[in-house]
Amino acid sequence: MSAPDWIAVDWGTSQLRVWLMSDAGAVLTSLTSPKGMGKLTPPEYEPTLLDLVGTALPEGRVTPVVICGMAGARQGWQEAPYAKTPCEPPSALTATKVATKDPRLSVHILPGVSQDKPADVMRGEETQIKGFLASEPKFDGVICLPGTHCKWVHISANEIVSFRTFMTGEVFAALSEHTVIKHSMGEGWNAEIFEEAVSRAISTPATALGDLFSLRAETLLHGLDPASVRARLSGLLIGAELAASKPYWLGQDVVILGENKLAEAYLSALQSQGAMARLAPSGPTTLAGLASAYLSLKDTK
Amino acid sequence: MSAPDWIAVDWGTSQLRVWLMSDAGAVLTSLTSPKGMGKLTPPEYEPTLLDLVGTALPEGRVTPVVICGMAGARQGWQEAPYAKTPCEPPSALTATKVATKDPRLSVHILPGVSQDKPADVMRGEETQIKGFLASEPKFDGVICLPGTHCKWVHISANEIVSFRTFMTGEVFAALSEHTVIKHSMGEGWNAEIFEEAVSRAISTPATALGDLFSLRAETLLHGLDPASVRARLSGLLIGAELAASKPYWLGQDVVILGENKLAEAYLSALQSQGAMARLAPSGPTTLAGLASAYLSLKDTK
Repeated sequence: MSAPDWIAVDWGTSQLRVWLMSDAGAVLTSLTSPKGMGKLTPPEYEPTLLDLVGTALPEGRVTPVVICGMAGARQGWQEAPYAKTPCEPPSALTATKVATKDPRLSVHILPGVSQDKPADVMRGEETQIKGFLASEPKFDGVICLPGTHCKWVHISANEIVSFRTFMTGEVFAALSEHTVIKHSMGEGWNAEIFEEAVSRAISTPATALGDLFSLRAETLLHGLDPASVRARLSGLLIGAELAASKPYWLGQDVVILGENKLAEAYLSALQSQGAMARLAPSGPTTLAGLASAYLSLKDTK
Repeated sequence: MSAPDWIAVDWGTSQLRVWLMSDAGAVLTSLTSPKGMGKLTPPEYEPTLLDLVGTALPEGRVTPVVICGMAGARQGWQEAPYAKTPCEPPSALTATKVATKDPRLSVHILPGVSQDKPADVMRGEETQIKGFLASEPKFDGVICLPGTHCKWVHISANEIVSFRTFMTGEVFAALSEHTVIKHSMGEGWNAEIFEEAVSRAISTPATALGDLFSLRAETLLHGLDPASVRARLSGLLIGAELAASKPYWLGQDVVILGENKLAEAYLSALQSQGAMARLAPSGPTTLAGLASAYLSLKDTK
């Protein structure tokens, strides 16, 4: 294969994704590995990366590597201090340069973003945002990134003005797997039950925690089916999130970054509340963000 | 030891408690075992009980055994169908008689209580309530039973009129042990942080779910200590519960059944809201309830 001009890396907690790139923006090769931050000690990062890309690195020149995600956490490869809101999504100019044993590598870890009050942090999402803004540079509004830790991010004049994280995905998993609800829960979905639960939790947010045990009791007494339990739990939690995140989405132009079922669930929940929400156009926003971050590095070469 | 006139049993999910009793109300022996419902198949119940009390059972006569709790669940020894609200806390007259191989045993499993709408169930708490009402027969108000599944029970004219279950204890455990909060959480307590979080969650219940990730972020950015994380998580969840259970406690005479730290946390949270709450006078209310349930059996001998 032809040698890459640079390498893009999304190094998350549970997964590592690598793209070998040409300066023209073409993806020469893409690779994934389960060696996420959660499984590595600091000295293991360089060998892990070389295992994947070592043979592709040309001798006699230095190949830049731009990394986003948890590799920059305190317990990662090397801490990349947070940029503070309000700020632009970080470029490679503010990245932390990591010393490597292999002279063919020049490793740059992008900072995450932190907010003082309310205290909040992100690592990785800022690069997805950068990727989205590369395609819609004039965007002014709110970006929602559903997932384990859903982020709501207020964007204005190309800056991350403020943001808020909700642990909705992780709470859903913890309740589904580690409480009595697990005996009532199964696969499948019921869109009507989901929407009902969203509305109920938005209008009376205290409801969400109060209704959890009903999921179990309705199974025991009225035979509520496992798919409905899943949809209602999801609706109660997302509804409670929407109640708390209302200042972010009410009257705003909301873009949801994500293409999976979860993104669609957020979309239908927001639309049912009359919010102006849309899914972002398709495409790997993390890679676009890494490419945009790399540009600044290239410009200063 | 002298032979018991009857045997009281609290057979929960994770624990089995047995009291050998005299008709005069004296506890001759009390025993506990980790062989809760969660660890047993139906044929294992009788041998488990005989292991504990077999040697104490006199030959040539039948010793009544009165059982409350999860032994009466569908997956227990034998299902004891629920009594439906509104109803008095069940006595042994409505118990399910279980056939035994050992002729010295006469086993009665007390029913739990169910409510159609909102769907809810209890197994074991109705017996604690019966025990409390034996000491305060004219009580009219609300009983709060904190724990893994906290119950709020409206009592009037000696009947359980309605009730509501909150999974607050189990949600606390699931979030502390199975989400990113576990990295921030430790032992200890901070009463001021607890009360602040309770007030915040009661006044804006959507806050509780929204503030979860802040627990982690405040540790990372501002060094929030592990004891404060514990107190704040507890305060957010109990506050959200109090927001949802307000119709139960507002303007009511509230008695909290329980003597541990958790009961005291509920007491201080309720009192901070101006509620008329008190801890129940000390004493093993489950045993008192089983004794009260046994009385009706004895009267009809």
